[in-house]
Amino acid sequence: MSSSTETDYKFEGWAGLTADACKGEMSFQSFEPKKWDEDDVDVRIQYCGICGSDVSALSGEWGPVDKVAPQICGHEIVGEVVKVGKAVENDLKVGDIVGIGAQSDSCRECESCKNGEENFCTKQTITFNAPYNRGSAASAGSVSRGGFAKYWRGPSRFAISVPSTMDPASAAPLFCGGVTVFSPLSEYGAGTTAKNVGVIGIGGLGHFAVQFASKMGAEVTAISRGENKKEDAIKLGATKYIATGGDVKRGIEGHQRSLDLIICTINPEELPIHDYLPLLRPHGYFILVGVVPKPLAIPAFSLILANIKVGGSNIGSPAIIRKMLDFAAAHDIGTKKSPSKYIQKYNMNDINKALPDFRDGKPRFRFVLVNTDNGGKL
Amino acid sequence: MSSSTETDYKFEGWAGLTADACKGEMSFQSFEPKKWDEDDVDVRIQYCGICGSDVSALSGEWGPVDKVAPQICGHEIVGEVVKVGKAVENDLKVGDIVGIGAQSDSCRECESCKNGEENFCTKQTITFNAPYNRGSAASAGSVSRGGFAKYWRGPSRFAISVPSTMDPASAAPLFCGGVTVFSPLSEYGAGTTAKNVGVIGIGGLGHFAVQFASKMGAEVTAISRGENKKEDAIKLGATKYIATGGDVKRGIEGHQRSLDLIICTINPEELPIHDYLPLLRPHGYFILVGVVPKPLAIPAFSLILANIKVGGSNIGSPAIIRKMLDFAAAHDIGTKKSPSKYIQKYNMNDINKALPDFRDGKPRFRFVLVNTDNGGKL
Repeated sequence: MSSSTETDYKFEGWAGLTADACKGEMSFQSFEPKKWDEDDVDVRIQYCGICGSDVSALSGEWGPVDKVAPQICGHEIVGEVVKVGKAVENDLKVGDIVGIGAQSDSCRECESCKNGEENFCTKQTITFNAPYNRGSAASAGSVSRGGFAKYWRGPSRFAISVPSTMDPASAAPLFCGGVTVFSPLSEYGAGTTAKNVGVIGIGGLGHFAVQFASKMGAEVTAISRGENKKEDAIKLGATKYIATGGDVKRGIEGHQRSLDLIICTINPEELPIHDYLPLLRPHGYFILVGVVPKPLAIPAFSLILANIKVGGSNIGSPAIIRKMLDFAAAHDIGTKKSPSKYIQKYNMNDINKALPDFRDGKPRFRFVLVNTDNGGKL
Repeated sequence: MSSSTETDYKFEGWAGLTADACKGEMSFQSFEPKKWDEDDVDVRIQYCGICGSDVSALSGEWGPVDKVAPQICGHEIVGEVVKVGKAVENDLKVGDIVGIGAQSDSCRECESCKNGEENFCTKQTITFNAPYNRGSAASAGSVSRGGFAKYWRGPSRFAISVPSTMDPASAAPLFCGGVTVFSPLSEYGAGTTAKNVGVIGIGGLGHFAVQFASKMGAEVTAISRGENKKEDAIKLGATKYIATGGDVKRGIEGHQRSLDLIICTINPEELPIHDYLPLLRPHGYFILVGVVPKPLAIPAFSLILANIKVGGSNIGSPAIIRKMLDFAAAHDIGTKKSPSKYIQKYNMNDINKALPDFRDGKPRFRFVLVNTDNGGKL
């Protein structure tokens, strides 16, 4: 009972086979998609953002690359629905433009799934290199395949419609990078209870955070190492800019107790978190969205003194993604009328140039790969 | 224009002079009280609780004892007002029963003071061994003197009326120990948004936390090392009890993601905080109220995974103390009708027995010193 306008597509993509994948060694090849379940959709991929964790996985930071090869990464996917199962969710139809973020499945049975917070499900499947734990895909041992490919197949619950006014290329990086910062800004009241918001790191997720927080009505302080992101940060909506010059303790002088919420988008080997905490007002939140490798070292006293909280935030549920897209559409963030100036596009065929550039720190903000033969526009 | 029924009192108390003070070396002597300001009150002390930080200060953990000697500690004070200045606050009158907690003054000018959150004032004065920064006391170099004494003098804003239905001896330890846990229970929604509350450590502040949280309508899980506090924890209102046996990771098995809020009242040299975090549901809070000496080591991942927060909480403002006392009175916690079964009284003249007993870990819950000659009842 599936409906489809196109049936002769093949699942092919750019696979990482060794830890040299990001050095220009991605290999175009066919792959086994998820075993079909009737709540699935197939999507013709037009755009896929590159996110730090793709590069981490493909570089062997998450374990030997060849053990889970071929790795089809990419988890900021936007494309057109070409097939829907008879148990499709989200009212999806063939021809719809949808996006898929970092999560592709969840158990549907736990408290979190039932609450519509699938991103906390302990049996979830992330969008690349992970086993499916549900349905025929589980029994078949299907592994999730991401968006560095021509087609994507997965559970329709995690394929979210892109509003028609949105620019699909600009929307792609919102599905992981965007929602990862939108979620805590929303949870901790940016613009309402948190009038003053700080954003640490502006180049990657940070630029979304500055944009969203300012549109939510917050006064935004952008915090970066150097001065080179200042002009962009102000354009994005920040009203203050702190350049720490690498010495956080000194850099924040004069700004103590000025912020209600800090979103930390950087993840250096070791984060001098203690030096940032004096920026917070009493009751303030310091929220990490990137996995800092070394454990945070936090003196209890620095939390107790002014009821400070240090926390983390994990992507966003389908419901939060939907909320973010509606917010972006309503506030003209990445719409067709004003597409993002903060993405740099590469033809997906040039992935072996794009990934090395990404690894070398070349993206000032966000990279998006484009499948021109699937209708994506450079 | 001060009014007073009693004028011939002397400021005398038990002073710590060396780091051996708590070994039975407290010395009864007269001391210089705060220089009088017209917003002050004098209080005839009837009861004073013993709290961990008194013993820390008197044992030299906060710096050499003799440098700030004579140390008149004690910061869970209850007594009768005997003199009020003409600029008295809180509508206090001679004869009123009031209490004073860990804080005795604040600047009145900062954002926190103006918001009624004096406990976050960076120029605050704690109740013992600290300089006053305001009024004639500041110019005179007055140092705060606590409750191990016959009389207390200080700013009336920090002397809070004890409701007439409360048992004054039971009320004393609420002024620091009680409010320190009441405040975060209240801030993080115990019984409302936080249906399931865990309390780590039951002997000291923990017993207040179990009592308050259960009366707020939460399901309370008491978490302790051994089984010896189980019966009391259940009587205090806990419905679950976890004895970790010193191995937290193993002890919490089967209880993962069962709690919305954890109040941690213990402060060992090093806290295995990472092992406790799996107890929390998504969005949960782990709140410390005791200064753990070694910095907390927290893997970022353990916070990010389920939007977990680790925070601290710092005593409570006069407004929160008032709210707590009203709550205690309304829920029959330490009232004249049901005085606390969890305090052990010593005549204050026996302080050189009480402090060594406290240091030796003898209090099952809370110690209260009694000035029988000032109307305190053993």
